Amino acid sequence: MIGALAAIVGASQVSTDPDVLAGRAVDYTGRYRGTAGALVRPGSADEVAAVLRACRDAGAYVTVQGGRTSLVAGTVPERQDVLLSTERLTAIEAVDTVERRVRVGAGATLAAVQRAAGEAGLLFGVDLAARDSATVGGMASTNAGGLRTVRYGNMGEQVIGLDVALPDGTVLRRHSEVRRDNTGYDLTSLFVGAEGTLGVLTALDLRLHPVPAHRVTAVAGFADLDALISVGRRFRDADGIAALELIDARAAVLTAEHLGIAAPVTGAWMLLIELAGDTDHTESLAAALEDADLAAEPAVGMDAVASQRLWQVRESVGEVLGAYGPPLKFDVSLPLAAIPGFAGAAVDLVAGHAPEAIPVLFGHIGEGNLHLNLVRCALDGDAEHALYSAMMALIAEHGGNVSSEHGVGTRKRDYLSMARTEADIAAMRAVKAALDPSGYLNPAVLFG
Amino acid sequence: MIGALAAIVGASQVSTDPDVLAGRAVDYTGRYRGTAGALVRPGSADEVAAVLRACRDAGAYVTVQGGRTSLVAGTVPERQDVLLSTERLTAIEAVDTVERRVRVGAGATLAAVQRAAGEAGLLFGVDLAARDSATVGGMASTNAGGLRTVRYGNMGEQVIGLDVALPDGTVLRRHSEVRRDNTGYDLTSLFVGAEGTLGVLTALDLRLHPVPAHRVTAVAGFADLDALISVGRRFRDADGIAALELIDARAAVLTAEHLGIAAPVTGAWMLLIELAGDTDHTESLAAALEDADLAAEPAVGMDAVASQRLWQVRESVGEVLGAYGPPLKFDVSLPLAAIPGFAGAAVDLVAGHAPEAIPVLFGHIGEGNLHLNLVRCALDGDAEHALYSAMMALIAEHGGNVSSEHGVGTRKRDYLSMARTEADIAAMRAVKAALDPSGYLNPAVLFG
Ligand SMILES: Cc1cc2nc3c(=O)[nH]c(=O)nc-3n(C[C@H](O)[C@H](O)[C@H](O)COP(=O)(O)OP(=O)(O)OC[C@H]3O[C@@H](n4cnc5c(N)ncnc54)[C@H](O)[C@@H]3O)c2cc1C
Ligand SMILES: Cc1cc2nc3c(=O)[nH]c(=O)nc-3n(C[C@H](O)[C@H](O)[C@H](O)COP(=O)(O)OP(=O)(O)OC[C@H]3O[C@@H](n4cnc5c(N)ncnc54)[C@H](O)[C@@H]3O)c2cc1C
Repeated sequence: MIGALAAIVGASQVSTDPDVLAGRAVDYTGRYRGTAGALVRPGSADEVAAVLRACRDAGAYVTVQGGRTSLVAGTVPERQDVLLSTERLTAIEAVDTVERRVRVGAGATLAAVQRAAGEAGLLFGVDLAARDSATVGGMASTNAGGLRTVRYGNMGEQVIGLDVALPDGTVLRRHSEVRRDNTGYDLTSLFVGAEGTLGVLTALDLRLHPVPAHRVTAVAGFADLDALISVGRRFRDADGIAALELIDARAAVLTAEHLGIAAPVTGAWMLLIELAGDTDHTESLAAALEDADLAAEPAVGMDAVASQRLWQVRESVGEVLGAYGPPLKFDVSLPLAAIPGFAGAAVDLVAGHAPEAIPVLFGHIGEGNLHLNLVRCALDGDAEHALYSAMMALIAEHGGNVSSEHGVGTRKRDYLSMARTEADIAAMRAVKAALDPSGYLNPAVLFG
Repeated sequence: MIGALAAIVGASQVSTDPDVLAGRAVDYTGRYRGTAGALVRPGSADEVAAVLRACRDAGAYVTVQGGRTSLVAGTVPERQDVLLSTERLTAIEAVDTVERRVRVGAGATLAAVQRAAGEAGLLFGVDLAARDSATVGGMASTNAGGLRTVRYGNMGEQVIGLDVALPDGTVLRRHSEVRRDNTGYDLTSLFVGAEGTLGVLTALDLRLHPVPAHRVTAVAGFADLDALISVGRRFRDADGIAALELIDARAAVLTAEHLGIAAPVTGAWMLLIELAGDTDHTESLAAALEDADLAAEPAVGMDAVASQRLWQVRESVGEVLGAYGPPLKFDVSLPLAAIPGFAGAAVDLVAGHAPEAIPVLFGHIGEGNLHLNLVRCALDGDAEHALYSAMMALIAEHGGNVSSEHGVGTRKRDYLSMARTEADIAAMRAVKAALDPSGYLNPAVLFG
């Protein structure tokens, strides 16, 4: 099979070097590790399709890898898989500034797409801290959220067309020059969020947005989470809302310490608010905070330096926490009202299972998203599993969802039934079987 | 089988009366007619599922009917089908004003949902002129657009949960109390827009929106379509955009005549613009029109009476045109730049095929949508077919899509390959076969 792969992509684009494979068989946090049989780097949609055909015919399993920043170990192979990397599919076509869209290869990084949009005087609607590594193909496959979801929606809302190599080795191309298209099933939405189990995205048409003329940032500190939530609720559907981020003081301190900057802490819980638009929202932002129950005077209309420092802390937090050892991560979404109760119970739960671990919270509060990270969590094996499962149950108890934006990957597949009914999972499996009858594509992901 | 159906829903909810069936076997325009074997009106999701099982087991075909306002003859049965009506599934639960959502039966009309939202101080994001008959189930199944798409998106963007009775007779329930949920395939988007070929929607969770504090309407008249498009382009992504509608003078005159009011005509082509938000957009609206190439002074910030009259004309146009005999309808979407060229060519095409017909144009210009209606079009049979096919080809030539918002239904199934590639249609068919292997649900729709 290695020969067949080399014939398709060229020998230099296939590797069986054990070091290379070991480096690619581990997840971003370093907690989860698998084993791979080969790495292959196709250079076009047709090559991807041919690679899929060859693997299927050889009875090999395939795991798709983009930027490998998945936080649910979605790229960890479990069956000596062929690793199919999209790293050569990085072409970015000319931005269409009239229709505000751009066609990009699935392996292009978020940062590269943001740069291309910026150079054309436009803005890409999704942003997340892993931007230098995360690929738009991986982001579409996980329907990634992030720092701008509250304004522009998730990755899915940006994808208006795609090329996808299907498990049967054909390439499905769905592009449209128009904004509205009501002919047949919304397969685009089906491939978005399918975590590579239904096909390999090779190219995407992405929507771009005008750059708002005005932008104002504020940070408000709160003594307790209830007070923060009630302010967050006020802003999440506000005119011009551009970001609404929660960060707890512990996360801010740990991160600032690591970055070697002063910790911008104004309360146990901080809310970062950004409004943007054709008009200046500074006044309405200040007015909306006036009667809020704050721990300190809010900083509204921060200067560029202060606002950048704050964003630097918020954005670095996920990465920096890793410096304290592989963190144990939970990515939860909850009804806003349930967040304070859940946060308290979750911290208690952690204290019971792993008293040494430091629980740290941040998240995209506009969507009810909460990232709970356990720093210095020494648990592994059964003890880790016990805590993980107990946390999943706690999420369900609070009316939450076990995956807010990271997807299911390999990490949460055993908890899928907490989020989906039997009939729903049966329908998903029927769709999977229809497109990938032999189940060779991303076999460890989602259903496992 | 009639006995089996009666046992499920009660004898009074099953009808084989030929008059009743004939009345339901025709489409909204009166142009297209089929034949049905029975009408059944289940009262719950479980009854819908049981009806589906009974029909499948009896080898009967099923056509789903909501408000029967489809403009692509989507509810016209072709095989003595059992007509499954959702008219009894009209429950509307209490509006959740905190999470801004409401759960409604699939048979609830748009008007009823709008009323419920309004009574709770909120707004439903989709509006269309068929509101008193169109059901939210039918609207979700066709992913309907309409007068507010430019601001809130299509019907699909409002659907955050659903109950759907599947062809295998089970009920799939997908609901979530949270805004973000990243666990598994986006089946909600798959059922939305599937035009009833994958299951029968029985209930929906719908997103609601805050009511903007300010709203300003303007109408601008243009001598030619190019000038209108260049202004439309400026507004379609503008801050606060709430509506952006095109109507030609001919449509306005015919409609106003029929309504017995003065025709509000200020140019051959008119653009209705509405901005709304927490702040008053009157100034920016006037400013944006200042240097536009208008046929007359624009009316900005019209009073309630004038604005209502204008909306009445725009909204009545579709219905009123029917009074001149069954219209022949085209629902096109195009890149904005292609609209003037297409409109000219389409009018020429009509003149060649049906010189007696009056072509009338209106549409949701924000999405590049164009409704071309032929009033007093006497063609039928082969002559109608020839014009219809030539028009579809013309649309494709201009980079447009043969269905902008009405769906494929039975009317456009033969033109699906103009919008979708072979691999795409094959994938859609695979999904259909996975969920409805015997193909008994809405057999005439989409694939035909
Ligand atoms: C510091 C940091 C911050 C983050 N912040 C956020 C955040 O704010 N919001 C958020 O949603 N996520 C966040 N993430 C998670 C992660 O960045 C996203 O899930 C991202 O979408 C993954 O992109 P990737 O290219 O790295 O995909 P990978 O990790 O390579 O793959 C992810 C999944 O998609 C599949 N896949 C990858 N490429 C393709 C393709 N072309 N076709 C089909 N399947 C494919 C893989 O098999 C895998 O199952 C963060 C991660 C890090 C490390
Ligand atoms: C005057 C007028 C104005 C209109 N304006 C617009 C507009 O602006 N934008 C727009 O998009 N459309 C418009 N339409 C078209 C039409 O209103 C929409 O397509 C609407 O969504 C149909 O809803 P309905 O309940 O009447 O569905 P039906 O006509 O009853 O059914 C439509 C399709 O959906 C299926 N279906 C119905 N209910 C269900 C269900 N519960 N589960 C599964 N399948 C189901 C049917 O089998 C059929 O294929 C207009 C129509 C009229 C008459």
